[in-house]
Amino acid sequence: MTVKTMANSTYELTILSQDATALTNEIDAQLNASEVRDDLRIVQVASHVDEVCTEDISLLLAAPDLAARVVPECRQLKWCQSTWAGNRRLLALNKQDYLLTGVKGIFGSLMREYVFAYLLQYARNVQTFAKHQASQPPIWEASPRLPLNGKVLGIAGIGSIGQALIPVALSFGMRVIGLSRSGQAIEGVEHVFTPEQRITFAKRCDHIVNLMPDTEETTGLLDRDFFAALPRHSVFINAGRGNAVKDDDLLTSMNDGRPAFAVLDVFRQEPLPSNHPFWHHPNIAVTSHTAAESTPYDVAQVFVDNFIRLKNGLPLRYQFDFSKGY
Amino acid sequence: MTVKTMANSTYELTILSQDATALTNEIDAQLNASEVRDDLRIVQVASHVDEVCTEDISLLLAAPDLAARVVPECRQLKWCQSTWAGNRRLLALNKQDYLLTGVKGIFGSLMREYVFAYLLQYARNVQTFAKHQASQPPIWEASPRLPLNGKVLGIAGIGSIGQALIPVALSFGMRVIGLSRSGQAIEGVEHVFTPEQRITFAKRCDHIVNLMPDTEETTGLLDRDFFAALPRHSVFINAGRGNAVKDDDLLTSMNDGRPAFAVLDVFRQEPLPSNHPFWHHPNIAVTSHTAAESTPYDVAQVFVDNFIRLKNGLPLRYQFDFSKGY
Repeated sequence: MTVKTMANSTYELTILSQDATALTNEIDAQLNASEVRDDLRIVQVASHVDEVCTEDISLLLAAPDLAARVVPECRQLKWCQSTWAGNRRLLALNKQDYLLTGVKGIFGSLMREYVFAYLLQYARNVQTFAKHQASQPPIWEASPRLPLNGKVLGIAGIGSIGQALIPVALSFGMRVIGLSRSGQAIEGVEHVFTPEQRITFAKRCDHIVNLMPDTEETTGLLDRDFFAALPRHSVFINAGRGNAVKDDDLLTSMNDGRPAFAVLDVFRQEPLPSNHPFWHHPNIAVTSHTAAESTPYDVAQVFVDNFIRLKNGLPLRYQFDFSKGY
Repeated sequence: MTVKTMANSTYELTILSQDATALTNEIDAQLNASEVRDDLRIVQVASHVDEVCTEDISLLLAAPDLAARVVPECRQLKWCQSTWAGNRRLLALNKQDYLLTGVKGIFGSLMREYVFAYLLQYARNVQTFAKHQASQPPIWEASPRLPLNGKVLGIAGIGSIGQALIPVALSFGMRVIGLSRSGQAIEGVEHVFTPEQRITFAKRCDHIVNLMPDTEETTGLLDRDFFAALPRHSVFINAGRGNAVKDDDLLTSMNDGRPAFAVLDVFRQEPLPSNHPFWHHPNIAVTSHTAAESTPYDVAQVFVDNFIRLKNGLPLRYQFDFSKGY
């Protein structure tokens, strides 16, 4: 669907996000530098759902978890620009008579830095050197390393974000294999497996990154059999969504030595509860869903670009398809 | 100079290194799989200089710091294969009537992993997340990051090892500038500066890696003026040689905030003395001259390849020029 362009009229925007103030400032700044500076008024700025009047919402820029709580009541809603890439809660609502766009395109460069930061800090034993330095007296000692050069990186969920990892992996002398719903060939990737071939895929990986979206098909796909098929030296990184991993299966398999190390950014429940064993496992690094987090500047750029498209009657970028769920 | 090939005769090798046993095993294994298996005998295996008889040394495979102590007395010496890339002590001796080769070609892939491990762990605040995870209760919190994407990497000493960093830097969306003695253009590098232009070079860098060899010209080149020209957000990595850095100047400048963080693998004195302030500075990471350390397997490969070349009357690889000092 498209939003009918209202020539010579002003659009009214509601911003609903914990970063609402920063987003407002960024949008103001970017609008002022644009051709559409007089076509948009920001009418509501809120960081909590009970601060907005849903009757007045026609354009909404919002964090998807907050948006999901107000959207069912927004009878005037034409377009919602989400501040995230993943929007499962919004996609699962019955209300689907509006345009939903996400933030994409900016995550690839952040994700590749996250993934290689952790692959390399493990490969190069950065933590051990830090411990040696903090010792009294400090310890001057080599530490084993496991070069990435020549190793196989497996990317489960090899869409636009996953593909941003490929040139980096190749530049380190790694080989790349993938797993996607279609199994369709991708340049630079030796072989793309389908979900049914996930065990063969796991056996071929030295290290593996999950970037699959949260869908019914991906839920629980990374289970005991999958982890047991990984090699003993493998690092597993989950920077996709928490639903794919069976938490207990990962822990059981790690206690059997596969994978050797796990880096987890996303979880079934977020924030990860303080008593969850992931926090306390010696071979697990936990980060707080920050692998590829957009900044207010990034979100404002996507929003303003899409708003200009809206004004000009062009299709919006990063639009979701409610029937497909992504 | 070349070593005269002795057809139908057996060469005698002395191995002098702390890794002498591992080197001997690797060379035995690699020789046995080669065409020259019957042409070399290992006659002396020693880890200390007082264990070798210098009169018997014609071919020497040795760590350069140990070699420098015996070479002046080796009247039969034809060829010394050093186990390192840098060989300043040997090059500085008066005795130069033999062939000296180093180990090169294997360091690029190790160096690029070291450099990006540390650039990325700083960019992504890996240490802060680790501290958050170790807290009681653990802390679920975002942490500032400074993406490498779009930043300028400066490589001082952009020879074969330094050039191995270029494709990786480009794949992360970085731009690359360099500094070399000649200032000669290099593919993928926006501009190569000369040592005289080092301040202009420093001003243009976001992050900087020193890989310059230990020569008279590089000694003390990275001084107060140089560090003061770096931007406040910069990370400085020294994985070349310790002579280039004026230690006190680096510390003074860091206490003024430039660079923001330093990663030091090489030092004027090694092992770095326990009381050296580098060990104890909160914004310095120290590693133990291990950024690009060869393994006995790597060294054996270079030696056996060179030995085959010697047997076949071909020029040896990675030969040093005593007159140039590298």
